[in-house]
Amino acid sequence: MKSISDYLIQRLYAHGIRHVFGVPGDYALGFYRDLDRSRLTVVNTCDEQGAGFAADAYARVHGLGAVCITYCVGGFKVANTTAQAFAEKSPVVVISGSPGVRERTRNPLLHHKVRDFDIQLKVFEQLTVASAVIDDAQTACGEINRVLAAATRYKRPVYIELPRDMISAPITPTRSASSEAEPPDPAMLEEALAETQAMIDAARKPVIIAGVELHRFGLQDALLRLVEKTNIPVAATLLSKSVIGELHPRYLGVYAGAMGRKDVQHYVESSDCLILLGTFMSDINLGIFTAHLEPGRSIYVTSERTSVRHHTYPGLTLDGFLHGLLRTGLRRRKAGPSPHPKPPAPFRPVRGKRMTVRRLFQRLNAFLDDDTVVIADTGDAMFAAADMTIHSQTEFLSPAYYTSVGYAVPASIGVQLANPRLRPLVLVGDGAFQMTGLELSTAARFGLTPIVLVLNNAGYGTERPMMDGAFNDLLPWTYSLIPQMLGTGVGFDVATEDQLEAALQAARRQTDTFCLLDIHLDAHDRSPALQRLTEALAKRVRARQ
Amino acid sequence: MKSISDYLIQRLYAHGIRHVFGVPGDYALGFYRDLDRSRLTVVNTCDEQGAGFAADAYARVHGLGAVCITYCVGGFKVANTTAQAFAEKSPVVVISGSPGVRERTRNPLLHHKVRDFDIQLKVFEQLTVASAVIDDAQTACGEINRVLAAATRYKRPVYIELPRDMISAPITPTRSASSEAEPPDPAMLEEALAETQAMIDAARKPVIIAGVELHRFGLQDALLRLVEKTNIPVAATLLSKSVIGELHPRYLGVYAGAMGRKDVQHYVESSDCLILLGTFMSDINLGIFTAHLEPGRSIYVTSERTSVRHHTYPGLTLDGFLHGLLRTGLRRRKAGPSPHPKPPAPFRPVRGKRMTVRRLFQRLNAFLDDDTVVIADTGDAMFAAADMTIHSQTEFLSPAYYTSVGYAVPASIGVQLANPRLRPLVLVGDGAFQMTGLELSTAARFGLTPIVLVLNNAGYGTERPMMDGAFNDLLPWTYSLIPQMLGTGVGFDVATEDQLEAALQAARRQTDTFCLLDIHLDAHDRSPALQRLTEALAKRVRARQ
Repeated sequence: MKSISDYLIQRLYAHGIRHVFGVPGDYALGFYRDLDRSRLTVVNTCDEQGAGFAADAYARVHGLGAVCITYCVGGFKVANTTAQAFAEKSPVVVISGSPGVRERTRNPLLHHKVRDFDIQLKVFEQLTVASAVIDDAQTACGEINRVLAAATRYKRPVYIELPRDMISAPITPTRSASSEAEPPDPAMLEEALAETQAMIDAARKPVIIAGVELHRFGLQDALLRLVEKTNIPVAATLLSKSVIGELHPRYLGVYAGAMGRKDVQHYVESSDCLILLGTFMSDINLGIFTAHLEPGRSIYVTSERTSVRHHTYPGLTLDGFLHGLLRTGLRRRKAGPSPHPKPPAPFRPVRGKRMTVRRLFQRLNAFLDDDTVVIADTGDAMFAAADMTIHSQTEFLSPAYYTSVGYAVPASIGVQLANPRLRPLVLVGDGAFQMTGLELSTAARFGLTPIVLVLNNAGYGTERPMMDGAFNDLLPWTYSLIPQMLGTGVGFDVATEDQLEAALQAARRQTDTFCLLDIHLDAHDRSPALQRLTEALAKRVRARQ
Repeated sequence: MKSISDYLIQRLYAHGIRHVFGVPGDYALGFYRDLDRSRLTVVNTCDEQGAGFAADAYARVHGLGAVCITYCVGGFKVANTTAQAFAEKSPVVVISGSPGVRERTRNPLLHHKVRDFDIQLKVFEQLTVASAVIDDAQTACGEINRVLAAATRYKRPVYIELPRDMISAPITPTRSASSEAEPPDPAMLEEALAETQAMIDAARKPVIIAGVELHRFGLQDALLRLVEKTNIPVAATLLSKSVIGELHPRYLGVYAGAMGRKDVQHYVESSDCLILLGTFMSDINLGIFTAHLEPGRSIYVTSERTSVRHHTYPGLTLDGFLHGLLRTGLRRRKAGPSPHPKPPAPFRPVRGKRMTVRRLFQRLNAFLDDDTVVIADTGDAMFAAADMTIHSQTEFLSPAYYTSVGYAVPASIGVQLANPRLRPLVLVGDGAFQMTGLELSTAARFGLTPIVLVLNNAGYGTERPMMDGAFNDLLPWTYSLIPQMLGTGVGFDVATEDQLEAALQAARRQTDTFCLLDIHLDAHDRSPALQRLTEALAKRVRARQ
């Protein structure tokens, strides 16, 4: 008979999971042993934070991710990464070992316990869409299936706690209870589709703003069909960047209010029919609310609700609506002139010329190919990357809404394990690198080959224009020595354009290990996008004091 | 008129705080600016986790600590360090910036937000003894005082959230509401003291087990007076180690059930009157419940309750009880023979002989002086350190109950800033070092001088005897190169006894920067204490599968 542990591993495998990230600890050791014997690969990171971010990135590329940690001392270290997965809709299964059910009687002071035994559950109830403590072998299968179904349906993290004396308990497999969403009322769907079709067909200049939910719910191909059927131009947001390949002729660029390219902003904001599909209307995503999108000319569809102009169709969601729209007789337009990302200019390095952010990204844009995935950390790495031209779908990742710092290096581990065809190009500020950059150790241990660029501007460059002080300074590390310290990888110091050129070419040839480029930038240099954004942010910080 | 920010800073200063640890972020920048202009020093760490641990250690040495972070992306990163502070009674003030009150209307998607605006508050309500969102200038002073008073009274963390538009709001200072605990019923106290005095005086072989609360509540001198007045021998626990200077003639050693020294275990367990003062009866602290302490011959006093044999005096707490006991006419005993830590043996290094854990700690024991504080991370670093002889009070720190891994290096920052007379001797496993060891960067930036020993046994050595697998392995780093990477500090590779001797002597002379010793140990070498403990733990892990 199967154990609870075997059953959970089998269900994870059936959901497509092949790697589980984490740090072992005694309450979780039994489950680690069973993972180790299974078809899943355990990826133990330096710190639980790294495991949480790697699992989130794995989920974004692969559809579902998993992180396994021990009770409290492990669990609370992934509170932040789970919060990010919740905020940005990344379905991560958080699996935590915990004290055995039979150890909990008379409430003893077992190690790692904070207050009551259910404290970790209470915290994760806040940070997940479904949670279960598997404390009864009779209901274990049903509970595991209920929780995994919620992750798949809502594309958000879930929590499974395994008391250590339940791991090997035998189960009786049960059919999972159906947890399908009720199909929408067909009459309501028809009314909404008819209204939408009429509104789009009557419009002079409709625009699609393609949001990140299209990616999360596997609707990228449906989007592509809609664009190609109608010839309506399409913009992405910072969070959804690469939801459509950016070489597509109808692709406009990233729309981000005043932070984005001017021609995209102008084109979108002068549209008479905005089709917002699965878009997060968040502040940074929309250029700190410098976006001007008029609800009276918008169709706004998400996984949770659908609105046309000022009225709402409750219960109509993205999937059904988008497939419905493809069945309507939406008219095909002539492909008129619209903005399009400029093709990468050839980069001619000037010997001895100091690196700048602008020139760096000009060069990197030409470096991208069909097998490069760009992973941008919070900060100018992310803002400057907004205008890179990404070749194929799902080749850009960034925490553009939750904006937790230190995501990119551990994320690259999850990305490359989820899709070994891709080579990560990791863009990370020095502040972010000092948080989690040593997870390169894990990348090296598992034979991964990211090219990591540390945008080294001697501190928290995004904060300096808002409010500066010694608290934005960091100790200057010699990042290029890290490969030597780790015993693998290749390091480069890049202060000039010709050094960049040489390092990138060497990195491209070096396909068997990671490369780390320390890009020396002026402390006050920043990308045009960040320049615009920090001016908007600084106004807010000052206004609110 | 003062602002809320000025008032909070003034109250922190009045409570003795001189350093605030954290990582800045835009919601907290206004408060960082005000901190920067104040008499407090801001210590910005590489990652928020480091700040949380540093603040916890500062609180243990100094009486109160503070960590300041931004909303959610910062806050959730200190969830684990706050949980540890709660579990081990370390009073840390968690101060978080957050979206302004006026920004929250109509629930917009501001960056860093997970779900609702109060989600961080809800999580920290679980992890602290008091919390407040300072959203009203009228009540701000009262709320700040209420929360700080709770930290002082319960010696546990508290949470203060500052919406960014409240930071500069003017306040009207108010008297803080009295939050003194009710004094205990005098008749109850007299009854308890009389019973206790009779029980102790009648005993043939009473023993004091001095717990960590004596340290937290500033009762170390009272303990010393009790010992010197009565000549009753005293043991510490792992968590309370150094609650009394270990050269004191009546000091027995660390009592930890089967994990501790045999002579201490035998002496304590054969006592006919156990006086447990402020002791945590937790599993690791008591050798995974291998301790045999009979309630029928115990007097058990904590900050929360007092029991004599099987009955309880509700409301009688440690402070009043201990001072009461000192006023009674407890008889002075003849100081009979009792176990005592062996004086450190002189260490004669054998040239070329491979390092072992046993020999390492033999040497380190002789290395300690009056100005050394030992900070031991979770793992064999902690267990092996149990039998070191600490010269003075509060010169040993370790998370012996909550046992979060990665505490020691960031803790050393808090300790040395709290008491610059002390030089930290940091004992940390390679697994723990890979989590947070790069916070040496922060130590270097603030001119601190820890001597850090990485007990390098190529993985999670504490787990191997419980259950081994590739998940206990780590990439082998060349730790001794880290000073070169950071541009400061001195690194040593130590594989033999003579190399240890040379490195320690060089480290003692090197008083202007940190030293990092990579101690190469066999993967399966461990201290006698860990040997005993992991046998007990392995039995439990196996029994519960």
